[in-house]
Amino acid sequence: MRTGFLQYDVVFGDKEANQKKILSLIGGDHFDLLVLPELALTGYFMPSRAKTGELAEEFATGETFEFFRNVARQHDGAIVFGFAERASDKVYNSAALACPDGTAYLYRKTHLFNLEKHWFDPGDTGFRVFEFRGARIGIMICFDWLFPESARTLMLRGADIICHPSNLVLPYCQDAMITRCLENRVFAITCNRTGMERQGGETLAFTGRSQVVGPRGEVLAGSDGTSEKLVLLDLDPAVARDKTVTPHNDLLGDRRNDSYCC
Amino acid sequence: MRTGFLQYDVVFGDKEANQKKILSLIGGDHFDLLVLPELALTGYFMPSRAKTGELAEEFATGETFEFFRNVARQHDGAIVFGFAERASDKVYNSAALACPDGTAYLYRKTHLFNLEKHWFDPGDTGFRVFEFRGARIGIMICFDWLFPESARTLMLRGADIICHPSNLVLPYCQDAMITRCLENRVFAITCNRTGMERQGGETLAFTGRSQVVGPRGEVLAGSDGTSEKLVLLDLDPAVARDKTVTPHNDLLGDRRNDSYCC
Repeated sequence: MRTGFLQYDVVFGDKEANQKKILSLIGGDHFDLLVLPELALTGYFMPSRAKTGELAEEFATGETFEFFRNVARQHDGAIVFGFAERASDKVYNSAALACPDGTAYLYRKTHLFNLEKHWFDPGDTGFRVFEFRGARIGIMICFDWLFPESARTLMLRGADIICHPSNLVLPYCQDAMITRCLENRVFAITCNRTGMERQGGETLAFTGRSQVVGPRGEVLAGSDGTSEKLVLLDLDPAVARDKTVTPHNDLLGDRRNDSYCC
Repeated sequence: MRTGFLQYDVVFGDKEANQKKILSLIGGDHFDLLVLPELALTGYFMPSRAKTGELAEEFATGETFEFFRNVARQHDGAIVFGFAERASDKVYNSAALACPDGTAYLYRKTHLFNLEKHWFDPGDTGFRVFEFRGARIGIMICFDWLFPESARTLMLRGADIICHPSNLVLPYCQDAMITRCLENRVFAITCNRTGMERQGGETLAFTGRSQVVGPRGEVLAGSDGTSEKLVLLDLDPAVARDKTVTPHNDLLGDRRNDSYCC
């Protein structure tokens, strides 16, 4: 299964410019599963909830979905991307899995980071796993990484690959995702954006360093902090179904729910 | 609070030699809380369950406890150490917290690693938190690190400092403990042993690199892979009670139990 990430600098509020950039960076490459950043077409640093609502679109309809469905169809592969979602009076920081046949699946970010609490409503979908070409695909967004329950829940629901669209500004996540993969024996594709955004006197610098990590904690592919690039590699999602740690340890069988507090 | 670890090479089956080594390495230093390795006086690589039972002692009685109580009293500080515990027909891979006033607290290893399943019974105490000099002290042992629920449970039960006696043979734990501290905003003292042990044709090499990590994921002190040494530093356990991540994020308040699967 040809999978990977597209790391780039998102132009705030200019969906058309971001679409052009995405098309240009993907070029003619084939993929089965490609992960893009959180808020992949809108940018991140919202001036207000009103502006967030203005940039937001409903799930599965509208120009963002038309664009990604077309890309998915043309490349015959699925795309996971973050978007601002409008749903009646709510606005969510969401991600979708768009398949080449037009099917789309939705996840709404569970753990909102800092000022996102002003811009978005907390997600209400929970952590979901979707099947595509024999792979079980889970989605979490950016700050969800800090809560071990996010990846744990996805693994317990059967995820082979965790797709992790991000807009990271802190340096911890990439190392932590190695632990997430080790403790869950899953693949994880963290796609982070690059560049900076300003609002008022404040600047956010996004840290890039997107990566693909394997079920033994091995970094299979990575990027630097600034490059705009497509990174693809072949992986076998079924490898993540072997939860053996040692001849006498199995990650699922060794869990001790009787001893855990949640 | 003066805390730290004592990293050393345990001589298999020779409690007296290990006691002498411990006394010599501690010297006259003062500590409030000192963490020693898993199976601190017996060594690790058991030839059989029968031998494990032979080396094991009952909790709070016998020569191992007499020794550690004396050290705790003489240095006016508490000691966390691993020991093989006999309890009626069971044998546990346990750790105790021995206080200078003679009090002792018990934890039995929840997640047994590999051949330990031949030598020990799985722990039945669950993850416990004990108070000493205003600090809330949780204990987990070695392989418990791989299961995020171990440290999570200790944090949810109020631990400021996770004491983590270990006999690590793999290279992943030290980095993962940084994630454990970040995701729980706790201190962690991982005390690993050094040296090698052989049974039949098999050799286990213990990787040292003991460390103290702070609630922001900062490595406050560490050792190399081979040195036998005492490492002490001052820390304020109350720092771990601030679960603030950003002005709008609190590690406890942001948990979404409704969205987790366990």
